[in-house]
Amino acid sequence: MSSPSLQTRADTKVPARIARSAATTRGAHLRTEDFGGWLADRGRAHAFQVERIPFAELDGWSFQESTGNLVHRSGRFFTVEGLHITEEGEPYGDGPYADWYQPVIKQPEVGVLGILVKEFDGVPHLLMQAKMEPGNPNLLQLSPTVQATRSNYTKAHRGADVKYIEYFVGPGRGRVIADVLQSEHGSWFYRKSNRNMVVEAVGDVPLLDDFCWLTLGQINELLHRDNVVNMDARTVLSCLPFEDTSDGALLSDVELLSWLTGERTRHSVRAERVPLDSLPGWKCGEDAIEHVAGRYFKVMAVSVRADNREVTGWTQPLFEPVGPGVLAFLTREFGGVPHVLMHARVEAGFLDTIELGPTVQYTPGNYAHLPASERPLFLDTVLRARPDRIRYEAVHSEEGGRFLGAESRCLIIDADEADAPLDPPPGYAWVTRAQLTSLVRHGHYLNVQARTLLACLNATETRTR
Amino acid sequence: MSSPSLQTRADTKVPARIARSAATTRGAHLRTEDFGGWLADRGRAHAFQVERIPFAELDGWSFQESTGNLVHRSGRFFTVEGLHITEEGEPYGDGPYADWYQPVIKQPEVGVLGILVKEFDGVPHLLMQAKMEPGNPNLLQLSPTVQATRSNYTKAHRGADVKYIEYFVGPGRGRVIADVLQSEHGSWFYRKSNRNMVVEAVGDVPLLDDFCWLTLGQINELLHRDNVVNMDARTVLSCLPFEDTSDGALLSDVELLSWLTGERTRHSVRAERVPLDSLPGWKCGEDAIEHVAGRYFKVMAVSVRADNREVTGWTQPLFEPVGPGVLAFLTREFGGVPHVLMHARVEAGFLDTIELGPTVQYTPGNYAHLPASERPLFLDTVLRARPDRIRYEAVHSEEGGRFLGAESRCLIIDADEADAPLDPPPGYAWVTRAQLTSLVRHGHYLNVQARTLLACLNATETRTR
Repeated sequence: MSSPSLQTRADTKVPARIARSAATTRGAHLRTEDFGGWLADRGRAHAFQVERIPFAELDGWSFQESTGNLVHRSGRFFTVEGLHITEEGEPYGDGPYADWYQPVIKQPEVGVLGILVKEFDGVPHLLMQAKMEPGNPNLLQLSPTVQATRSNYTKAHRGADVKYIEYFVGPGRGRVIADVLQSEHGSWFYRKSNRNMVVEAVGDVPLLDDFCWLTLGQINELLHRDNVVNMDARTVLSCLPFEDTSDGALLSDVELLSWLTGERTRHSVRAERVPLDSLPGWKCGEDAIEHVAGRYFKVMAVSVRADNREVTGWTQPLFEPVGPGVLAFLTREFGGVPHVLMHARVEAGFLDTIELGPTVQYTPGNYAHLPASERPLFLDTVLRARPDRIRYEAVHSEEGGRFLGAESRCLIIDADEADAPLDPPPGYAWVTRAQLTSLVRHGHYLNVQARTLLACLNATETRTR
Repeated sequence: MSSPSLQTRADTKVPARIARSAATTRGAHLRTEDFGGWLADRGRAHAFQVERIPFAELDGWSFQESTGNLVHRSGRFFTVEGLHITEEGEPYGDGPYADWYQPVIKQPEVGVLGILVKEFDGVPHLLMQAKMEPGNPNLLQLSPTVQATRSNYTKAHRGADVKYIEYFVGPGRGRVIADVLQSEHGSWFYRKSNRNMVVEAVGDVPLLDDFCWLTLGQINELLHRDNVVNMDARTVLSCLPFEDTSDGALLSDVELLSWLTGERTRHSVRAERVPLDSLPGWKCGEDAIEHVAGRYFKVMAVSVRADNREVTGWTQPLFEPVGPGVLAFLTREFGGVPHVLMHARVEAGFLDTIELGPTVQYTPGNYAHLPASERPLFLDTVLRARPDRIRYEAVHSEEGGRFLGAESRCLIIDADEADAPLDPPPGYAWVTRAQLTSLVRHGHYLNVQARTLLACLNATETRTR
C-alpha cells in the first residue's frame, strides 16, 4: 500500500513570501524609477495606430442577417448581441420592477490571465508584460505574464504562440499560488469569466522582450500612477493571498455569507438574449450603436496596426463608455479593524444575480439628469470627499481589448458615521480586508471593479507601513 | 463615534454544539424507536392518493402552442422545456464533442429549505416535518422545517401560510448557522438552486402537528433507513458545520481549488433552450414524453388528493427515471486521514459547467447496452463491492415534488489501490471530509447527490465513534 505524505490545507508560507515581495520596493532587475523609460522604450519599439472606422470598414466582422448581431465570419472571438433584462418585483423579488435593453458582448471562451512568480535574491518577483491594447488611453500598459483565450493558446488563432503559457497549463506547469474563475464586467459582458492565476515557476525562466520582473512592492507603487497597470493585471493581483492577523469583523463569516445569499435571493433577474438590431432605446448608425439619450456607452469599431500582437493588424468592435466612471471604497475602522462598505450589485451579465461591487461604481454622467433624491447612494459623498480623507486615488482603465478609453477614477476614502453609517442601507455591508481576501479565492463574489479596488487597497496598506 | 464590538470570523462553538447533537441519540421529545409509529400516525392523519393521469387530464397545465413547452396557466410553479446541449471539443474544450437533446424542468424561483434548531436539555434539536410529496415511493418522508418557494411564502400561492417561515426570513429571524444557495439536479433542472438554511431559534417555538424535534444523532440513525429522510433534508444537513481536527490532505486547499478551476475551464458546455415538442430522440405520447430507446427518464403527470398541503388537491407533471440509480463514495485513508474520490461532473443544467459529484452517480440501466470498455469509471467496482467493504448503504429518493420514484442506492465503500488509485484518472480527485465541509459553505461546488452522500458520511462517522 502506498503511504503518501499529506500537505497542510493552508500554506502559510506563501502569504509571508508575498508580504516580503510587497515590502520590497527595490527590484532585482529594474528599478522603479527606470520603469517609465523601459515602458516608453517598449512603446517606441512597436509602431501602432488605432483609428476609428465605420462598421462597414470592419474586416471579417458584419451584422448577421438573421439576428442583427455583430459577429466575426470565423464564428470566433466574440459577438455583440442584444440583451433584454427584467428585474422582477413581488412575489419573485424585492424589485422594484425594472426592464431594459442593451447591447452586450458575448464571449463564451474562458481565458487565462496569469502572473508568473520567481524568487530573485530571496524575494518573489512577478513577470509583467508591456502590452498594447487598442482601447487603452495610452495604448501600452503593464499586463499579466499571460493574457490569452483558450483558442488563442491552443493555436486556433492564426498567429504566434502565447509566450510563457506552458507555465500555466499542462503537465509541466509551476506551483499554483492562486487559480480562480472570476467574472468580468457584468454590465458589458454576458456571463464572461476568466481564469485568474498566479503560478510560481520551478527552474529557470527566460526573459523575453516586452517582459520585466518586478516585486509586488514595485507594482504597488505603479498602481499609484494613472493608466499603467491594466485591468487584467489588477484582477490577478487582487487574488494574491496576504498575511492576515485580524480575526475580528462586524459580521462573522457565516453572517456575511448569509447576507450575500439573502441579496442573491431577493433579486430575481432575467436576462434574455435578443437581436442587436432591434433594441428599444438604442439607435444603429454607420459608426456607432448608441443610446437614444446619449447615456451608458456606444458600440463602435477601430482599425489597429501593430507588430507585437499574436496577429499583425486587425479591425474590431469596441465598447466606448460615454464618460469617465468613479469607483470608490468607503472605509471605516471598527474596533481597530478597517472595514470596507461593499455593495451587492445586480449586473445584467452576472452568472448569478449579484456580486459584491465597490461602495460606489457609477458613470456620474448617466445620473446627471436625476433629481438629488434619485441619485445613487454614496456617489455625492465620494465626489465631494475632502482631500485629507482620500487615502488612495488614481485613474485606471478597463480591458483595452474590448473597451475604448473606459477610464475610472479609483478612490479609497476614509469615511465617518455621517458619510456611511455603521448600520448601512439594504444592499450594503461592512466587510474586512481579510474577508475580501477569503471571498476572492472563490469566483463570482467580487466583481471586477471591486477586485481593482482590492488590489489598490492592498497596495495602499503596504505603502503606509 | 460608535464603538461596536467585533465578532470572531469563525464561530467555533457552533460546530462543537452540532457535534454534541450528533452524539446524542436520545432526543428530548421523541424516542427514535417511536419515530416509525409517529410517522405512520401522521400518514394516517392525512388521506391522500396519487394517480397517473394522461397529460390531457392535467388541470391548469398544458402544452403551450408557440413553444410546445408544458406550462401552468398562471405562469407560475415550473415549466417543462427542451434543452439542446453541446459539449465542445478543441480548441474550446477538451471534449470529446457531445451533442444531445433532453426535456428539462425550468423553475427560476429560489426556494428556502430551512431547518430550525433549538436547544433542549443542553442539546441542539432539529425541527423536522412529516411531509407528503407525490413522487416519494412511500409518499410521507421527513423534510426540513420549511420547504417553500418564494411565491409560496410571499402568498402568491392560493393557500395556507408556510409554517415557521418567519424564523428564516425577515427581521425577526433566528441566528444563522448555515445559509447557502445550492444547485439541484443538473441533469433534470435548468439552473435551479435553493437556499439551504440552518437557523437557531431565539425564544420559544410552538410545536405544530406534523413536526417533531430530533437530535442530529437521531436523524443520523434515520439516515440509515430507506426512504425516510427526504432530499431536501439531506442537502440542508450536509451544510451543517462540524468539528474538524484534521488539517492534512493529499491536495492543499489551493491545489484543490485550482484542480476545480481547471475542470471548469477544460469543459465548454453550451445549453440552449429549445421547444419541448420537437426534441430529437424523444417521443411525445398521451401519457408520457420518453426517450426513443427507453433510457433516462419520462415526463408524465399525476393527480394528487391530500389535505396537509398548502393547496388541497392538484395535478402536476413529474419526471420519472426509468430505473434506480447508484450513488457511491469510494473512500480511502491516506496518511491517517480519510479521503473521498470526487468526480467533476458536467450536467446540462449547472450554472457553471461542472460541480463535484460522488465517485459514482449513474442509473446502471442507461449503460447496460455498452461494451465493458465504455462503461462509466468505477461503476462496476461499486456494483461488485464485497459486503465487508460497504460502510454505509441505504436507499434514498430525490425530491418527490418533481420526481416520481427516483430512488438511488447510496453507498460508502472502502476502496484500495486496485479499486481507486492514489493517482486518479482525469476528472477525479481525492478530497477530505473537512475539505468537503469547507466547499459546501459556498454554492455550486458539490452537486445534490454529493451533498446527500456527505450527509450520509457524516452520519456514519458519528455512528462509528
